Amino acid sequence: MSKLVIVGTVAFDAIETPFGKTDKILGGAATYIGLAASQFNVDGAIVSVVGGDFPEDYITMLEHKGMDVSGLQIVSEGKTFFWSGKYHNDMNTRDTLVTELNVLADFNPNVPSEYRDAEVVMLGNLHPMVQLSVIEQMDDAKMIVLDTMNFWMDNALEDLMKVIKKIDVITINDEEARQLSGEYSLVNAARKIMEMGPDYVVIKKGEHGALLFHEDEMFFAPALPLAEVFDPTGAGDTFAGGFSGYLAKTEDYSFKNMKNAIIFGSALASFCVEKFGTERMLSLQKKEVHKRLQQFKSLTQFDIELT
Amino acid sequence: MSKLVIVGTVAFDAIETPFGKTDKILGGAATYIGLAASQFNVDGAIVSVVGGDFPEDYITMLEHKGMDVSGLQIVSEGKTFFWSGKYHNDMNTRDTLVTELNVLADFNPNVPSEYRDAEVVMLGNLHPMVQLSVIEQMDDAKMIVLDTMNFWMDNALEDLMKVIKKIDVITINDEEARQLSGEYSLVNAARKIMEMGPDYVVIKKGEHGALLFHEDEMFFAPALPLAEVFDPTGAGDTFAGGFSGYLAKTEDYSFKNMKNAIIFGSALASFCVEKFGTERMLSLQKKEVHKRLQQFKSLTQFDIELT
Repeated sequence: MSKLVIVGTVAFDAIETPFGKTDKILGGAATYIGLAASQFNVDGAIVSVVGGDFPEDYITMLEHKGMDVSGLQIVSEGKTFFWSGKYHNDMNTRDTLVTELNVLADFNPNVPSEYRDAEVVMLGNLHPMVQLSVIEQMDDAKMIVLDTMNFWMDNALEDLMKVIKKIDVITINDEEARQLSGEYSLVNAARKIMEMGPDYVVIKKGEHGALLFHEDEMFFAPALPLAEVFDPTGAGDTFAGGFSGYLAKTEDYSFKNMKNAIIFGSALASFCVEKFGTERMLSLQKKEVHKRLQQFKSLTQFDIELT
Repeated sequence: MSKLVIVGTVAFDAIETPFGKTDKILGGAATYIGLAASQFNVDGAIVSVVGGDFPEDYITMLEHKGMDVSGLQIVSEGKTFFWSGKYHNDMNTRDTLVTELNVLADFNPNVPSEYRDAEVVMLGNLHPMVQLSVIEQMDDAKMIVLDTMNFWMDNALEDLMKVIKKIDVITINDEEARQLSGEYSLVNAARKIMEMGPDYVVIKKGEHGALLFHEDEMFFAPALPLAEVFDPTGAGDTFAGGFSGYLAKTEDYSFKNMKNAIIFGSALASFCVEKFGTERMLSLQKKEVHKRLQQFKSLTQFDIELT
């Protein structure tokens, strides 16, 4: 079975949307990435840290989903990373209410020795130095995928640039791509970012879909238009998990296969937002994914005869 | 040859974008629609009005593009409709600086008798009562396409609703769809708008593409990501012209063919924005359109094996 190393937060989230409010529930980038990747029956390992307050049930659940948790450190005297946010009515913007780093403040990632030969590495959003440390522990990675955000561009740009030099794919949103490149046009932004290191640039536009750039090629995957979005939390991580999980499963890094990875990422993300937190991803069945991929096909495929 | 009736403004525009500024140049919804539709060798008739100040050269040009101008009234003592606007740096928003209705204020459209049996009618953005008058002059229209905007929702909603009841396809932008329906989700907005009359709803999202809704079906066409957008003026009308022109040429009103019409509309609109005003559309060659359609294919087509 193909191996996939997943680095990122495992966390508590408290979320408020126009549809309701949650107490501290399971969250974190690595959690969402792992749940999405579990759809592909890959041998995924979560490299992260939690506190003594983190329920064992959650860890058991991740194991049941096929995730190796030997790289999930438990700091029994510490507290788990906590994030709280409130979404505005448009569901596209949110305010962060609370960020408590807790055990994440002193996190030193340790990739289990059996996973250091994994081909695909998914670096979820975290401090660039943590991401760099993971890269340095990998023996033979062929496809390192980086997710990051404007916070690190504002506060740790030099470190972030070191990471960007060493990766193969970067996934960021449109505003972040503009910030990182200084270019307004996403086509020009992607070109500049490719010069910084990665061969592939994925620009996430939320409800407006995602763009994949590679050399002079472009591919676009729409987001599935939904009647209701209940909670966008984790959608970007789920996208990353679907993308990297599919690559790990297929071990095919051609542009053609990257297109499929983007579509899988988009399809899985479209489920994530249907319920609060991880709820929808926990119950998700293969049959449902299959059906949604069909919807993506009929949403985008056309057949013009060019005469 | 299939007939297409085109109603809309024929105008002077003065445009300012971050890339430059124009004096009064050729503009107007019917002009852009006609230029786009001329790519399909349909027998198009422009129903509109201009003043005595409108250069004969422009009219000759439209004739050379295959447009019948017997329904283009010339009020020799009047002045042509004039619009002036300035785009912001993001190119997605603009300020209208001047709107002089001039001869448009008393416009009574008159569809030439030889065109009253056309199957496809493209109602460009104009006062709903003018659009209604054109509908009433048609003997046997099978596909009436309406373009409109928030201005008429704000100022002539009752008249607009009468028109919406009688048409087959409406094309509006995302904000206008939300305003017209009172629904934030575009899926729900489209459903409500279909209840108002049209069988097909096209929601234009500018650089984020366009959505087509029909019963329970959805189709999405992206906008081609471009390195530079010089002038968005006329892009929506060009989209409408490509859409209706393709329908007129094929006379196939199935959902499958509507998808192709949307792709053609998007492809032609992607040319329109490359230069100021109508400049790019005037020089556009069939070969270039063909090549761009190939780009749309590679941008959107994928081949996941669903096992």
